[in-house]
Amino acid sequence: MKGMLTVSFPDQTWLDDVGPIEGVAPVVWDPTQPPPGEDVEVFVAPYMAPSALLEPVRDKPSVRLVQLLSAGVDAALPVVPEHIAIANAHGVHDAATAELAVALVLAAQRGFDEFAAAQAKGEWLPREFRPGLADKRVLVLGYGSVGSAIARRLAPFEVELTAVASRARGGDDLVDRIHGTDELLDLLPQQDVVISVLPGTAATKGVLGTETLAALPDGALVVNVGRGPALDTDAALAEAGRLRFALDVTDPEPLPGDHPLWSAPGVIISPHVGGVTEAFRPRMVALLREQLSRLAAGEEPLHVVGRG
Amino acid sequence: MKGMLTVSFPDQTWLDDVGPIEGVAPVVWDPTQPPPGEDVEVFVAPYMAPSALLEPVRDKPSVRLVQLLSAGVDAALPVVPEHIAIANAHGVHDAATAELAVALVLAAQRGFDEFAAAQAKGEWLPREFRPGLADKRVLVLGYGSVGSAIARRLAPFEVELTAVASRARGGDDLVDRIHGTDELLDLLPQQDVVISVLPGTAATKGVLGTETLAALPDGALVVNVGRGPALDTDAALAEAGRLRFALDVTDPEPLPGDHPLWSAPGVIISPHVGGVTEAFRPRMVALLREQLSRLAAGEEPLHVVGRG
Repeated sequence: MKGMLTVSFPDQTWLDDVGPIEGVAPVVWDPTQPPPGEDVEVFVAPYMAPSALLEPVRDKPSVRLVQLLSAGVDAALPVVPEHIAIANAHGVHDAATAELAVALVLAAQRGFDEFAAAQAKGEWLPREFRPGLADKRVLVLGYGSVGSAIARRLAPFEVELTAVASRARGGDDLVDRIHGTDELLDLLPQQDVVISVLPGTAATKGVLGTETLAALPDGALVVNVGRGPALDTDAALAEAGRLRFALDVTDPEPLPGDHPLWSAPGVIISPHVGGVTEAFRPRMVALLREQLSRLAAGEEPLHVVGRG
Repeated sequence: MKGMLTVSFPDQTWLDDVGPIEGVAPVVWDPTQPPPGEDVEVFVAPYMAPSALLEPVRDKPSVRLVQLLSAGVDAALPVVPEHIAIANAHGVHDAATAELAVALVLAAQRGFDEFAAAQAKGEWLPREFRPGLADKRVLVLGYGSVGSAIARRLAPFEVELTAVASRARGGDDLVDRIHGTDELLDLLPQQDVVISVLPGTAATKGVLGTETLAALPDGALVVNVGRGPALDTDAALAEAGRLRFALDVTDPEPLPGDHPLWSAPGVIISPHVGGVTEAFRPRMVALLREQLSRLAAGEEPLHVVGRG
């Protein structure tokens, strides 16, 4: 079968859902199991695979591309050798992660944690005016694909949006301009809500830490749907009570049962479920079909991650 | 002071926030207290006043307009005599109520009730794909001012919107057409989420009842941010488990501590807080200033409710 591209999928359901693609020979390779006999060229990783499940590609010299099912590449970078390209699932998780960010903002601004506790006791809480979202100033920190998807969803909520990315640049249809992270400290005192979508890199570690959190006004809400280490946990614990937090990602993760974040005042936690909805599979299947069709046709892969 | 319009406010904070208006003589009238000596012409009601707090206008022959601070007029209609006009707070609660509707949808679709219970136990839940909102079909039942505010906020979430109002009419920038309630039963089998914004009238009582709920597919979510009686409580209890519910309003309300709705499977309850955010006061103050300026200038009042 000259010219066929051998592609491994983590289980049969992915192979079935992606379906036949001209020029592609599919096999199943669950990396918790021994590798298949075929010379796999493209390794499709399991969803949210830790580094250990990506390491087996080292022992398969035929592999030239690892296709991740996540936007984040922090688990892959340390273990996938330089000669193998890494492609991420660019755009696939935007809808689900952006809607979770809005969900965390709304749950915190409207008091859903208190409603859940009251419901468990059969208690109808007395009326209390809560902050809400309308009229609030919201800063999106990490204004890429997911960040702009968040801004697009927030725009009709009558909020004032500010976007911050690693480098300042011109605006889009949602914000007049995109600020650089060097402006962050000056912008924070004017925010009611900060949503971090920062990836897990050395440069983003602790961007939200003692100094930046101190710059936020009393009662501000900090949301994290990027990677846990962008928010310094000790600094967050020190500010919990003055500030509020709604976190889908934490550091460490998973959070141990006795960790003080669980019960810190004004903290809502969801267990890293940003992309974990029914929206994932159809979008991922579409990306895989496009990616593999391109590769089988001899074109360059999409969404290859730069490696420094 | 010939030509001055005497307006009563429920407390001094409203009088202060509205500020001076040419031709308006403000007084405070807290209807839990005896009426003031002045011949009040416009009675501004307390927020979410029950019928008992509107009854005192009967004994004040000078009153010709009751200005409510709510969109709903169900508490006023039975007790305010026909010769007194009733104006509602049209538009004031749209932002807060619409964001609560979206918050309830997202909390239910993403599993926030389970996250809250797990957080209380310090438990990091295993990954589970939940429905999410993207790609879902959402029907807004009661497509008026609040209904279209909900649709506007939902539009960027990659959903398929359907609008239903009492009478079919042409669409707007959000939906191609607005269906009539006579089409509801045919539309329900194609929905993943139904959001009721129906007011509390004889015509809307039990619109979501045994027959309509039975028409919804398994796992569908029913949200109520209108008035409680639009959803038949017994029918909801019978379907809880097959369907899910996220309710800001209930019947009865407040819900007694031993009511089975509190612990029915797949039910989230918030304690009638649709309009109860910091967005309320600035919007209400703006409406009062506009309304009272018009009346002082001899113009017709805005937002007067038809009384059959």
